[in-house]
Amino acid sequence: MDSLTELTHKLRDFARERDWDQFHSPKNLAMAMIVEAAELVEHFQWLTPEQSAALNTDKLEEVRQEIGDVLIYLTRLADQLGIDPVAAAHDKIVINAAKYPVELTRGSAAKFKNT
Amino acid sequence: MDSLTELTHKLRDFARERDWDQFHSPKNLAMAMIVEAAELVEHFQWLTPEQSAALNTDKLEEVRQEIGDVLIYLTRLADQLGIDPVAAAHDKIVINAAKYPVELTRGSAAKFKNT
Amino acid sequence: MDSLTELTHKLRDFARERDWDQFHSPKNLAMAMIVEAAELVEHFQWLTPEQSAALNTDKLEEVRQEIGDVLIYLTRLADQLGIDPVAAAHDKIVINAAKYPVELTRGSAAKFKNT
Amino acid sequence: MDSLTELTHKLRDFARERDWDQFHSPKNLAMAMIVEAAELVEHFQWLTPEQSAALNTDKLEEVRQEIGDVLIYLTRLADQLGIDPVAAAHDKIVINAAKYPVELTRGSAAKFKNT
Repeated sequence: MDSLTELTHKLRDFARERDWDQFHSPKNLAMAMIVEAAELVEHFQWLTPEQSAALNTDKLEEVRQEIGDVLIYLTRLADQLGIDPVAAAHDKIVINAAKYPVELTRGSAAKFKNT
Repeated sequence: MDSLTELTHKLRDFARERDWDQFHSPKNLAMAMIVEAAELVEHFQWLTPEQSAALNTDKLEEVRQEIGDVLIYLTRLADQLGIDPVAAAHDKIVINAAKYPVELTRGSAAKFKNT
Repeated sequence: MDSLTELTHKLRDFARERDWDQFHSPKNLAMAMIVEAAELVEHFQWLTPEQSAALNTDKLEEVRQEIGDVLIYLTRLADQLGIDPVAAAHDKIVINAAKYPVELTRGSAAKFKNT
Repeated sequence: MDSLTELTHKLRDFARERDWDQFHSPKNLAMAMIVEAAELVEHFQWLTPEQSAALNTDKLEEVRQEIGDVLIYLTRLADQLGIDPVAAAHDKIVINAAKYPVELTRGSAAKFKNT
C-alpha cells in the first residue's frame, strides 16, 4: 500500500479508538498543524541559513519528530476533507511550472509559487 | 514508486532546473512551510468548527491547493535534511500511543500528543 | 512616557546587555514572533469558540504570558525596522474602514481586512 | 490617553459598528493573528538575515502594514480576554531576566525566553 495511504488509515484508527473524531474538525486540525509547524520553525529561528543545513544528530532527531507531527496533522486534515494531499501537491506543481518557466526563473526567484 | 518518494524527486528537479537550491536552506523552507500553513488556517478562521467540515466546492478546491503547498514545502524540507517524513510520522505515532493509551483517553483528550 | 515606547526601550536595553542584537535581524525576530503566536493558538486549538471565551484562571494566566511574548517580539521587530506599530495599526484601520463600510458589512463579514 | 488603550477602544468601536463581535471569539482572533504573523514572515522567507535588515522603501511599507495587522488582532484578542498586553509583556521580561542573567548570557543565547 502507498505509504501515505497507510499513514492515513493508521491515523484514522488512532483517532477512532480514542473517540477523538469529535475534536478533529478541519478548523481544529488546521490549528494543530500550524502549531506543529511553528515548533519546527522554532528550531531554526536563531540559526543562520548555513547553520540550519548542518544540524547535529540530536537536533536533527528533534526536527525529524516535528516533521512527523506536521505530516500527521496534515494527513489527518486532508483525510477529514476527503483530499488526496499528494495529488494536490502534483497539481500545484503543474500550476507553479506554468507560473515559473525554467528559462525565466533560473536563480532569479526563490519560490515554488508567487504567494 | 511510492507517492511521496516520487513527489520528492519531482521537487528536487523543479528546484535544480531553476537554480533554487541556493534559497532552499532548512531555515527558509521552514518559513515557507508555515506561511502556507497559515494560508490554510485563513480559510477556517471565521468559520465554526461545523462550517469548516462542510465547505462548498470552490472553497474545498482552494483548501486543497493550500494542502498541496504545505506538503510541497514539508517534503522539500525533509529532503534537504535527509529525513523520511512518513517514517518520522510512524515513529511519532508509536510515541503518542504510549503517551495516550486507548483506555485512558477515550474522549477525554483531543490531541495526538502532549504539546 | 507612552507604554509601548517604554516597552521598546526596555527591550532594547535587554538585548544590548546580553549582546543579542547580533541575533535580532528582522528575519529572525519574525520567526520568533510567529512561534510565540503559535503557542497562543495552541491554547485554543481543541476548544470550541465558546470555551475559548471562558478560560479558567490558570489558563488565562498562561494565555496572558503568551500575549506578552508576542508583543515583546512584535515590538522588538518594529523597533529594528524603525516602525511605530501603533501608528501602523491606526493607518491600517483607516484602510479597513474604507474597505468595509459600516452600512455594507453589518454581521455579514468577520474580518478587519480582506486577507 | 495611552496609545494602546486608544487603539483598543477604536477596535472595539470598529467591531461593534459592524456587528462583528459574534465572530471575535479568542479562538478565532488567535487564528487571525497568526495568519497576519505569517504574512509578515512571508516578506522575509527568502531573504538573508542581512537583507531583512535593509528593506527598500516599498517593502518596508508593506511590512509596516503587516505589523499593524498583527497588532490589531493581538490588541483585539487581549481586549476580549480582559488582558493588558503591555503589562503582560513587562511581567514576562521580569521572568526572562531571572532566566537569562546578563552575566551568563552575553552573546551565548539568542532569545528572550527558553521556548
